[in-house]
Amino acid sequence: MRTRFLLGTLCALSAFFVTAPANADGLVENVNGITLDADGKVIRFNAILIGKDGKVTELLTKKDKLPPKLDFRHDGKGATMLPGLIDAHGHVMGLGFQLLTLDLSGTNSLAEAQAAIREYAAKNPDRRWIIGRGWNQEKWGLGRFPTAADLDVAVGDRPVWLERVDGHAGWANSFAMEIAGVTAASKSPPGGRIEMAGGKPTGIFVDAASELVGKFVPVPKPAERDIALGEAQKKLLSQGITAIADMGTSLEDWQSYRRAGDGGWLSIRIFGYAGGIENMVAIAGPRPTPWLYDDKLRLGGVKLYLDGALGSRGAWLKKPYADAPGQTGLQFLASAEIRNLMVRASMDGFQTAIHAIGDAANAEVIGAIEELSETYKDDRRWRIEHVQIVDPIDLQKLGKHGIISSMQPVHQTSDRIMAEARLGRERLKGAYAWQSIAKAGGNLAFGSDVPVESADPFAGLATAMTREDAAGQPFGGWRPEERVSREQALAGFTTGAAFAAFAEGKVGSLTPGHHADFILINVDPLLASPAELRKAVVSETWVGGRPAYQSSAATAAQNIKDGERR
Amino acid sequence: MRTRFLLGTLCALSAFFVTAPANADGLVENVNGITLDADGKVIRFNAILIGKDGKVTELLTKKDKLPPKLDFRHDGKGATMLPGLIDAHGHVMGLGFQLLTLDLSGTNSLAEAQAAIREYAAKNPDRRWIIGRGWNQEKWGLGRFPTAADLDVAVGDRPVWLERVDGHAGWANSFAMEIAGVTAASKSPPGGRIEMAGGKPTGIFVDAASELVGKFVPVPKPAERDIALGEAQKKLLSQGITAIADMGTSLEDWQSYRRAGDGGWLSIRIFGYAGGIENMVAIAGPRPTPWLYDDKLRLGGVKLYLDGALGSRGAWLKKPYADAPGQTGLQFLASAEIRNLMVRASMDGFQTAIHAIGDAANAEVIGAIEELSETYKDDRRWRIEHVQIVDPIDLQKLGKHGIISSMQPVHQTSDRIMAEARLGRERLKGAYAWQSIAKAGGNLAFGSDVPVESADPFAGLATAMTREDAAGQPFGGWRPEERVSREQALAGFTTGAAFAAFAEGKVGSLTPGHHADFILINVDPLLASPAELRKAVVSETWVGGRPAYQSSAATAAQNIKDGERR
Repeated sequence: MRTRFLLGTLCALSAFFVTAPANADGLVENVNGITLDADGKVIRFNAILIGKDGKVTELLTKKDKLPPKLDFRHDGKGATMLPGLIDAHGHVMGLGFQLLTLDLSGTNSLAEAQAAIREYAAKNPDRRWIIGRGWNQEKWGLGRFPTAADLDVAVGDRPVWLERVDGHAGWANSFAMEIAGVTAASKSPPGGRIEMAGGKPTGIFVDAASELVGKFVPVPKPAERDIALGEAQKKLLSQGITAIADMGTSLEDWQSYRRAGDGGWLSIRIFGYAGGIENMVAIAGPRPTPWLYDDKLRLGGVKLYLDGALGSRGAWLKKPYADAPGQTGLQFLASAEIRNLMVRASMDGFQTAIHAIGDAANAEVIGAIEELSETYKDDRRWRIEHVQIVDPIDLQKLGKHGIISSMQPVHQTSDRIMAEARLGRERLKGAYAWQSIAKAGGNLAFGSDVPVESADPFAGLATAMTREDAAGQPFGGWRPEERVSREQALAGFTTGAAFAAFAEGKVGSLTPGHHADFILINVDPLLASPAELRKAVVSETWVGGRPAYQSSAATAAQNIKDGERR
Repeated sequence: MRTRFLLGTLCALSAFFVTAPANADGLVENVNGITLDADGKVIRFNAILIGKDGKVTELLTKKDKLPPKLDFRHDGKGATMLPGLIDAHGHVMGLGFQLLTLDLSGTNSLAEAQAAIREYAAKNPDRRWIIGRGWNQEKWGLGRFPTAADLDVAVGDRPVWLERVDGHAGWANSFAMEIAGVTAASKSPPGGRIEMAGGKPTGIFVDAASELVGKFVPVPKPAERDIALGEAQKKLLSQGITAIADMGTSLEDWQSYRRAGDGGWLSIRIFGYAGGIENMVAIAGPRPTPWLYDDKLRLGGVKLYLDGALGSRGAWLKKPYADAPGQTGLQFLASAEIRNLMVRASMDGFQTAIHAIGDAANAEVIGAIEELSETYKDDRRWRIEHVQIVDPIDLQKLGKHGIISSMQPVHQTSDRIMAEARLGRERLKGAYAWQSIAKAGGNLAFGSDVPVESADPFAGLATAMTREDAAGQPFGGWRPEERVSREQALAGFTTGAAFAAFAEGKVGSLTPGHHADFILINVDPLLASPAELRKAVVSETWVGGRPAYQSSAATAAQNIKDGERR
């Protein structure tokens, strides 16, 4: 029933737009149009012609003549038009479930989180489990992980299971640990760690240990997945995102995407990277799927994890953590294993996207790519996801073999204090090194890692060009030599992200023959101040030449205009 | 590589037909056209007009005028044209794997089977397991099940695993039993039976016990599945079948069907019935899929097993087997269970197709449907699969609640001697009771249960109207009062089979607006003798207004004609 309601909502959306029927030639005019061409050159225009196939026919400037016959004309009212932004690394269903479950990403202290958890539990008496995500003890300034006892005082009568903001640790209350049978006798599994204090589990489960509790959490039903997908789509479109690389697609995720495609309600483009080889084979079989639903969906690659995250000290480092002597993080796959998996995928034509955060992990992936490039000499676009801490001696290698550095600008500002604590300043010379990678000839693709961070691409653009956080800190930027230009930043979220998914020629640039995916916003990203850019408002988002989102302000204006016409 | 070769072959097929381009208006003329309308009335015609959408535009007789503009005209050369035949109950992937593995269905004795197994093993030295299907100890006149020792003398150096013709029992050699760890201490699982002699396993595993060995058989890879699907399609099209209800679709099967659809090489129509609730949810999610790929594929229902088969004494009987005192077969699901599963499927709008062979099983399903019909009053088309042995007091109920009796005519002739042994003549008054069910107002749908039997629909048609086997035995037919008319037989494989899958209005009848799925054959099924009908040759099979199969004779003729033109 809820899905039906949702579908009703999605269908109703189109009704806002009286101006853009399906299968029509049309014009969106009176815009400050900006796009990058294949060489990264800025092209400016004032109107866009759209064909019946939903693709760009022509970009027009004010002096160009209009074709005599148009099915619709839409007034951009002077707004800035950009190509639909592409998130090169996100988790579509993770975002959807974040929107449907408890979100702690806005909490600034343990006490705030406890209050939010208590309130959420009171408001949702029917949920057997309280599930959520987004806590970050670093942001809270807690100086330690939270504990089961901290949770028990908020909710004690039901199991509670909350994922850390980076997805690399889980926080359970005592009820949940009891259900999971976790005791003082429990052992940490390979690739994971049960946090212990005084010989007892504290309630924190890092990386692979999360599964000890996670496997008892009720699995979402397909109908719930569809609702989550619908919510994620709405959210992304409202943020100006028209395409996203889905990093770690499960078979269940995929089936939901297909239901959306089959049912005609898939409104964003999803570049799927299967969560591991097993999902890759189950989803796509012997080779990548074709582009489906008019280029809305494809399973083209596989996502593999080589290490954990920095916050939970799971990132695999060459030398021990500065703040945890003797610990070098978690290496999920041995050298032979990661190579075998990459070969397994590559043999069948799948692209590989390897999560690597620590300098040891990045060195390992780069080494594996160097070896595999001997065999797979054609255009493979080996992806490394995050590329956060790189030993400077490895940086230059990111410019070879067509490696894609898939990076998330906002991670830099979120992580910098924590990163300094984990490694010390000296070891951060190759950290979040966007400009060094670009100068080495590397291919940058920018994303958000949503729901680890907000998908907001304007925060990403502003961060990429400043290395300052939303409060403007640190003034002048952290390691400002690694800032990128406005054009480079825009490329990271458009042409670069498209290239990273073999989708150039389809999306990422408003070029004749590409899909007419674009957004209308109230700032010019090549002129606005970073603070203005962070406050950008998306008034409209179009996918495939058809409107997919309109802000309530724009809707109101449209309604007034429609009223005037009558 | 093998799949690519296969796809190349499939693509090459279209090249035979110079006369039928895609997206064209066309005519197939000079045919003896026969179809049934929605009321079962015979309609005769001489040509068929096909639209650009691949659907029937009009049926023409000789006196009708042709439209002035046609993109193609194809000469039927006086052949009989029928709607593409529909198999209401088959196993698409089972057929595909039968075509790729050892097929024992043609063997007439244990010695013949042993020779075939030995020869196949010698020819396939690389196969780690020898896998096959189709043995039938009844047909061999063996008077007992075969044993592991019977297999060991044929192949002893590798595991061998052979399914019985009905899929309800497996035959292992000693090597396979050793791998599976089956010993004298092994216990039969619920719903299954390890055949024992002298306290030791004989090598035969009935129903659920098959899994004890089966789970060790290497799982086919996706690429192998795609090859199997391609082979199954070719075979079915060559037999005049354009659509099939796939009874027990697994998620892996489905992914193969989707790859075929996505890749543009799905050439038959598959009405999917998921193998159990878990597959149903994994494949379709919260409700049946839409019709996909221009009505080529849909997952609309679920297949559930209530009992086993008669041959292996797994059919659930009201009274003990005549030839095994005390045994009443296997009831796979308790009364509450079958109802719960049917409700689970029905709530989400899925059709249920329940395998029921014994009279107790049929009584149980009918009872469940009577109860469920109180709640689900709309058009549910409850399907019972096989409906083989029905207590006469239950027969009338098959005419109520829109129940579909999905039956396989050839099973009657294959089974009759065995059935008489299992139950005695007196208890067979409601066995394979096609005409009684029709008279009661039941909906008949005919199929083959391929690969349990050959999919050959002409054998099915001939059997349905005679109840004689291929040798004409017994003369006059077994319980001839249950024969159906020629028109009823044809309906069973066309309109009846379409209705059973909610596909009426799409296929099963050559009616304007329906897909132009048809075959050209060399006999008129309303006039030919049963013996002639059994020898029918399909010269062409068209799906969606496009050629999908042409016999080599027809191809040769076409090539000559093309040569003459040049």
